[in-house]
Amino acid sequence: MESIKYQLSDVRIPTSWYNIAADLPGLAPPLHPATGAPASVGDLTGIMPKELAEQELSTTREIEIPDPVRQVYAQWRPSPLFRARRLEKALGTPARIYYKYEGVSPAGSHKPNTAFPQAFYNKQAGIRRLTTETGAGQWGSSLALAGALFGLEVQVHMVRVSYHQKPHRRALMHAYGATCLPSPSRETDVGRRILDQDPDCPGSLGIATSEALELAMNDPHTNYAGGSVLNNVVLHQTVIGQEAMAQLDMAEDYPDLIVGCAGGGSNLGGLAFPFLGARLRGGDGVQVVAAEPAACPTLTRGRVAYDFGDTAGLTPLLRMHTLGHSFIPPSIHAGGLRYHGISPLVSHAVTEGLIEARAVPQTRCFEAGLVFARSEGIVPAPESTHAVRVVIDEAVRCREEGRPRVILFGLSGHGHFDLGAYEKHLAGELGDEGMDPEAVARSLAALPELPGGEG
Amino acid sequence: MESIKYQLSDVRIPTSWYNIAADLPGLAPPLHPATGAPASVGDLTGIMPKELAEQELSTTREIEIPDPVRQVYAQWRPSPLFRARRLEKALGTPARIYYKYEGVSPAGSHKPNTAFPQAFYNKQAGIRRLTTETGAGQWGSSLALAGALFGLEVQVHMVRVSYHQKPHRRALMHAYGATCLPSPSRETDVGRRILDQDPDCPGSLGIATSEALELAMNDPHTNYAGGSVLNNVVLHQTVIGQEAMAQLDMAEDYPDLIVGCAGGGSNLGGLAFPFLGARLRGGDGVQVVAAEPAACPTLTRGRVAYDFGDTAGLTPLLRMHTLGHSFIPPSIHAGGLRYHGISPLVSHAVTEGLIEARAVPQTRCFEAGLVFARSEGIVPAPESTHAVRVVIDEAVRCREEGRPRVILFGLSGHGHFDLGAYEKHLAGELGDEGMDPEAVARSLAALPELPGGEG
Repeated sequence: MESIKYQLSDVRIPTSWYNIAADLPGLAPPLHPATGAPASVGDLTGIMPKELAEQELSTTREIEIPDPVRQVYAQWRPSPLFRARRLEKALGTPARIYYKYEGVSPAGSHKPNTAFPQAFYNKQAGIRRLTTETGAGQWGSSLALAGALFGLEVQVHMVRVSYHQKPHRRALMHAYGATCLPSPSRETDVGRRILDQDPDCPGSLGIATSEALELAMNDPHTNYAGGSVLNNVVLHQTVIGQEAMAQLDMAEDYPDLIVGCAGGGSNLGGLAFPFLGARLRGGDGVQVVAAEPAACPTLTRGRVAYDFGDTAGLTPLLRMHTLGHSFIPPSIHAGGLRYHGISPLVSHAVTEGLIEARAVPQTRCFEAGLVFARSEGIVPAPESTHAVRVVIDEAVRCREEGRPRVILFGLSGHGHFDLGAYEKHLAGELGDEGMDPEAVARSLAALPELPGGEG
Repeated sequence: MESIKYQLSDVRIPTSWYNIAADLPGLAPPLHPATGAPASVGDLTGIMPKELAEQELSTTREIEIPDPVRQVYAQWRPSPLFRARRLEKALGTPARIYYKYEGVSPAGSHKPNTAFPQAFYNKQAGIRRLTTETGAGQWGSSLALAGALFGLEVQVHMVRVSYHQKPHRRALMHAYGATCLPSPSRETDVGRRILDQDPDCPGSLGIATSEALELAMNDPHTNYAGGSVLNNVVLHQTVIGQEAMAQLDMAEDYPDLIVGCAGGGSNLGGLAFPFLGARLRGGDGVQVVAAEPAACPTLTRGRVAYDFGDTAGLTPLLRMHTLGHSFIPPSIHAGGLRYHGISPLVSHAVTEGLIEARAVPQTRCFEAGLVFARSEGIVPAPESTHAVRVVIDEAVRCREEGRPRVILFGLSGHGHFDLGAYEKHLAGELGDEGMDPEAVARSLAALPELPGGEG
């Protein structure tokens, strides 16, 4: 019945973010879509402040966390690392299962780890407003929170279907004082063009990103803030893994296996990269598994190519696993995992054999979420249940093989705003829509041509 | 911009609960309604195990917390104590404001502090099922959680209007594996009688309590678990105040003023009683304010009398401030504060001049909740906004008077399941229904006659 918490004191909040680009050579740079040349800091400062643009391209291993950001982090960081003793007992497994719980942040997920530094650097640069996209709303509400605390206006373009399905996440953004619009909207050229073609368009993360980018590009007082995928975002999330490593050290343990759910990849990268970096520098080996939805299997079924991060093609070209930027995934409840691409850093680590990927269907994830809730007491976000599913499968395998492995996983957020999905699952109303192979084939055929020739 | 967290280590979770009955003489005992004689442990064991019945009547100062309960507490306790520096700055107040945040529990409020010990003692006594009432659902979901972890069935009778208004709280109970029924239901004599008279009855906490009690009284394998009011419940909540005292000690501070919202009174008592006990034993003075809703002003407008805790009159008679057990409060969103009576311990402390009470209207509470959310980052539960309202008013007074008082308040829970209410407030759709004086006069006229003569 015990869950033992290993709490570090405030002084142990990391003082720097860890940049795996220092230890993982061969990362392909983002490219300017018009020229095909590697993007420069100057190419990026139209939508983000110089500090973030520099972080985006940096290969420096340690990047100092500004003091005002550490002070805000101190409200909930270090986040707790739990030993899942009750889950272990329920599964009868000899595995030792630990989870790093990011749901203790005020917005309920890992997203504030990057929302606060992004708001800080933008405020410092004199920016007045941030625009962004959001799917299920974890990112939008986190940026709304950061804007409230650092004194920036925030405008969130929320995928239309989620905007109507998840009124409480929207209400949370309003409570923090942000503006939240359904996407596509008539506020942007991109949105108007799409709505003219299809007035009932349900929207997608790619479309919402295009709208947010368009507004940032056209207003010098407005910048864009990304919730995942970008190198600087993954960098900020490495507080998770650094803390977990120190906390496991206090527990005199080290993971054999690390599991995280992967949508844009920042949650997984944030947890795993400090461990993979140690391995790359000659430390202990560790297996890392990315858990992704069967409905949007970017890593297991996508192609590695240069592609846009958004639908309208406004981002730099990013080399990553992708299902194609025009792919619109089925409407699974893990809205945060419904993205056609993934962080180039995570993609590169997969290519290098440092991370393996598994695709899991929605209902088996919700089943795992309920097992977890009833043993550990925390209802996981639908995104996080993907990691829980893989962990339970691995723990059962440990039981069958009699192997006491040490498993660490990221519980990226709580499911307080997703209980309607649990209720549907309990009522047997959720299905396991798979990826549509023909839709993927179509969107892969529409990958951008590069000036350099690679598609 | 800083919120500084003072985290204690696990070893500092209190080892005992603090019973203010040891230091606050003159508490009137619960009475057997048929005889008018003080209730004995034996009178109570029909609905609760012997240990809880003994705690209910105990005057022992320190009551040891069983180890399995402390182990579960360790999942989120000690809960954080925050210095509200950003709120102080937003208000321009010289006051030092601290808040003890109970929303970090897996169910999101202070309620698990008593749900776990109640589940533990009942499980030990061989009980199979617990029944209870819930309004907004904080208590029902906490008991559902405790039942899941200790292996007990839980059946929650949820006030019908909340059952339909708050489907997500209901879904949380289901996720934890509990049964949740709208009250009144056809499962009980009480419920059937009420539905026969009024098939559309919206329900009340008093009715739901009667239903839960009836089932516990008629089945030897079923007990009742109360979410507030009872002495043993307030006792369990004193972990809050004990921790806060130790944490403030680490911060080298001591409160001049303690504020908590008061419905059944266990949140306020749990925070304030350890401080009041120290005062009663000769320690520093401290002002304590109970914040209650203007729509249900039990302490500011009720009468001190022996009354039932439920509508059907199944509880022992409790001497407390009451609006009459047949009073049905207006449907404010702070469902946890819609109760006709209050903890006899809190009531007695008010009578003795140790606690003062203030009634605050709903919309001013939501306004305060938004100020708090946008400065401290946490969206308070509607119940908790009552305390926030009083604290902001006091902090502004400190600014006007130039007095740097030290204010400690209880942030009893987060508002993740109440964002619909915030959205309505932001849309200007919430009103300030006051108490209906005629309804109170009617219910006070219906107070029970005592065999001993007092009404």
